[in-house]
Amino acid sequence: MGGDRGPEVTIPASLTCLEENPELHVILVGDEAIIKSTLGQALTEHGGRLSIQHASECVEMDESPSKALKNKKDSSMRVAINLVRDGKADACVSAGNTGALMATARFVLKMIPGIDRPAIISTLPSIYGHTHALDLGANVDCTAEHLFQFAVMGAELVKAVENIESPKVGLLNVGEEDVKGNEQVKAAAKLLEKSSLNYIGYVEGDSLNAGHIKVDLIVADGFVGNIALKSIEGTAKMIGYGLKKAFNKNWLTMLTGLIAYPVLKSFKDSIDPRLYNGASFLGLRGLVIKSHGGADELAFRTAIHLAEIEIKQDVIKKISAQVEQTLAKREIA
Amino acid sequence: MGGDRGPEVTIPASLTCLEENPELHVILVGDEAIIKSTLGQALTEHGGRLSIQHASECVEMDESPSKALKNKKDSSMRVAINLVRDGKADACVSAGNTGALMATARFVLKMIPGIDRPAIISTLPSIYGHTHALDLGANVDCTAEHLFQFAVMGAELVKAVENIESPKVGLLNVGEEDVKGNEQVKAAAKLLEKSSLNYIGYVEGDSLNAGHIKVDLIVADGFVGNIALKSIEGTAKMIGYGLKKAFNKNWLTMLTGLIAYPVLKSFKDSIDPRLYNGASFLGLRGLVIKSHGGADELAFRTAIHLAEIEIKQDVIKKISAQVEQTLAKREIA
Repeated sequence: MGGDRGPEVTIPASLTCLEENPELHVILVGDEAIIKSTLGQALTEHGGRLSIQHASECVEMDESPSKALKNKKDSSMRVAINLVRDGKADACVSAGNTGALMATARFVLKMIPGIDRPAIISTLPSIYGHTHALDLGANVDCTAEHLFQFAVMGAELVKAVENIESPKVGLLNVGEEDVKGNEQVKAAAKLLEKSSLNYIGYVEGDSLNAGHIKVDLIVADGFVGNIALKSIEGTAKMIGYGLKKAFNKNWLTMLTGLIAYPVLKSFKDSIDPRLYNGASFLGLRGLVIKSHGGADELAFRTAIHLAEIEIKQDVIKKISAQVEQTLAKREIA
Repeated sequence: MGGDRGPEVTIPASLTCLEENPELHVILVGDEAIIKSTLGQALTEHGGRLSIQHASECVEMDESPSKALKNKKDSSMRVAINLVRDGKADACVSAGNTGALMATARFVLKMIPGIDRPAIISTLPSIYGHTHALDLGANVDCTAEHLFQFAVMGAELVKAVENIESPKVGLLNVGEEDVKGNEQVKAAAKLLEKSSLNYIGYVEGDSLNAGHIKVDLIVADGFVGNIALKSIEGTAKMIGYGLKKAFNKNWLTMLTGLIAYPVLKSFKDSIDPRLYNGASFLGLRGLVIKSHGGADELAFRTAIHLAEIEIKQDVIKKISAQVEQTLAKREIA
């Protein structure tokens, strides 16, 4: 039901994913009448791989997370997360209210023992392909220990989904030199240096997209991570806007634009934010994927694909095992 | 002497600025022999508007600020800042080591009474023209009071250099709603709401380049501001790289690139970082402009132009008066 356009986007996206992946099962959670009318004939077309779970309420996009959690016990996101808790679903994918989804997921699924705070991880396009980054906004105040925990969880996720042995982990900072940074970052660096992670040191903001070396995972406080993410979105938007304006200047530039269109389009497609849609909540005992609220069908499909990959790679189990192992090591040391 | 390329860049840039502005006087500070040999005939060509001030030492780009301050009392940056302190120069422009320049400027010039910390302000290209933002890296840990002081100083600078009555001031945050943000930002918002500034509320990272409304000044902690700035640079770099790659794919795309070149170039020029070079140190009792270390001649000229504008607008005097007035108001209240 969530996102700016609701079932109009989430249902067609789900149907396409069912066609693409014969192993996929989808439970559509929300207002049964609306879902049925949007589905039409499609309900019976996927050999039992598509079902509906009714939920009588719906969290609004601007509703306060605490109110949603307290008052809407039969909301579509709550019911969907309950399915994950009860083992009836392997993941919940939602385009709904981020804060409410996080609060509900945390309340219902609980944290992995040893992890203090959940974090939001996603991928960003880079000159090396892409980079994983967390926390992108779940926590506005993080201690060094939180940053360390994010690194442990993030590295395990990157290992699983990218199939790399030892992902390079960088800590987002205002410079690469040891003396740079605030107290949290400096203390987190010390924890990371002592760890078994492939910690490469401090990285600057440009490393998210175009650093001088490839970094697999970039760790930051959610305040900084979110602002960096939005700054990147703003810059991409400004450049897109400026290019369009330059090509629309007069008939000659418009003609040029027509000629250059296929090349510009192929590049634009390669950094299409819809292909990077979907952020995972890490630190919970179940898989929850947040899609951008403004997602269209293609974008929402990307978020479902992300869930498929993380389910297949058993990411939650691997992270839980890694966290347990890290904690055990610390107790010995 | 500073920057990656030293007098090879700073001297030709200075000469061009002298030609452009007949009111400008330039004192080149550094190794007299090197300056004289780089200048050649030019020394006598500007009717006494060009002079040399010898300095026997030079701060290295990677030197620790505290060491530079302690051990190099005759460094070119120290001597140049002394000239500002002694009223022999109206501003110091340097492409040298940022940390050392800041530490030296703070030590020699002292702070404006009522201001606790200096901040770095610069402009960024935006879909509305450009946006001023501070702090871009001087302070990695800021209190609400620091953020408030940055806003007071920044607004006064924007007023003076943009000639606008009441610049719109936004506070960089992870969302626009009141409940969003960390403790410092929330407390700073309260101070700004009570002030006489045209405070428009929280703005997100995309406002630096492409927000849904025009903001004249964006205020942030130096840690966040610096990472946002570098993220923007990284994104622009990635897009430039990707476009080049797309046009270099095969002979057809290369031909297309050739045709589209003038339009792409005109757009690229409009966001050329060299046209945004130069950051001002605010909060000091004198004008210090920091150029990017990697600046070429055009970029360094932009930094000199910035100094010319801020001198003409008497920015330091206006900021000092505004700070005094703000403090007086607080004492009454």
